[in-house]
Amino acid sequence: MLRSEALDRLASAEYAHLATITPQGEPHIVAVTFVVVGDTLATMVDHKLKTTQRLQRVVNVERNPKASLLVDHYSDDWSTLWWVRVDGPATVHYDDEYWQKAGDALVAKYAQYTEDRPEGPAIRLAIERVSSWESTP
Amino acid sequence: MLRSEALDRLASAEYAHLATITPQGEPHIVAVTFVVVGDTLATMVDHKLKTTQRLQRVVNVERNPKASLLVDHYSDDWSTLWWVRVDGPATVHYDDEYWQKAGDALVAKYAQYTEDRPEGPAIRLAIERVSSWESTP
Repeated sequence: MLRSEALDRLASAEYAHLATITPQGEPHIVAVTFVVVGDTLATMVDHKLKTTQRLQRVVNVERNPKASLLVDHYSDDWSTLWWVRVDGPATVHYDDEYWQKAGDALVAKYAQYTEDRPEGPAIRLAIERVSSWESTP
Repeated sequence: MLRSEALDRLASAEYAHLATITPQGEPHIVAVTFVVVGDTLATMVDHKLKTTQRLQRVVNVERNPKASLLVDHYSDDWSTLWWVRVDGPATVHYDDEYWQKAGDALVAKYAQYTEDRPEGPAIRLAIERVSSWESTP
């Protein structure tokens, strides 16, 4: 898959999976809404998670910036499978210019955020390495 | 969500995401077919990936047993979201009793494997910790 094609599929994916590493050195994986912002991927803590905004993913990235985000297509028809993965350093943003921009972009992408704009910390993942795979029937 | 309910949803999930850690200390994430085998989860390298059976996930687990597997439900209707996560140590098996059992269970679960039984290494993830979350509309 060409890099441009991979980036297109990434941008139009509805949601993704984010992997980070806990302070105890364990892999941590969550499903996230996200959006492409320039040469970064942004995901934010939103109202879907009310108990705390100090989520594990935020704690992890603050301690260890290594992160990976995967979008993929699954189907019973295994000749149609594909995935795109982005690896790069991540940082946490709150109440700054990037946080504002990420919030705007998420509201623009997801109708569900129109009434409930995400207000928690943003995680910014630099699009450093792009990998992809596609089933070849 | 009760643990029994979480384990039911895990067992009936079509596919999952597996996170491990590379020898370079980076998080690694892949979509996998999998099956519950007793108190473990099994996933195997299959024919969908022809270039090598020495996949990153196998290399990772051989060096670092820490692994996490997530199944989740995504929908535009965010009042129906849920996920179940299993964390535990993982081991690689090849040509032993567990590998045989995992192959049998995968063929039983996935019709697609009937003609193409997975023949690569199996990753066995012990179901040690089960976490879950469900949207509460």
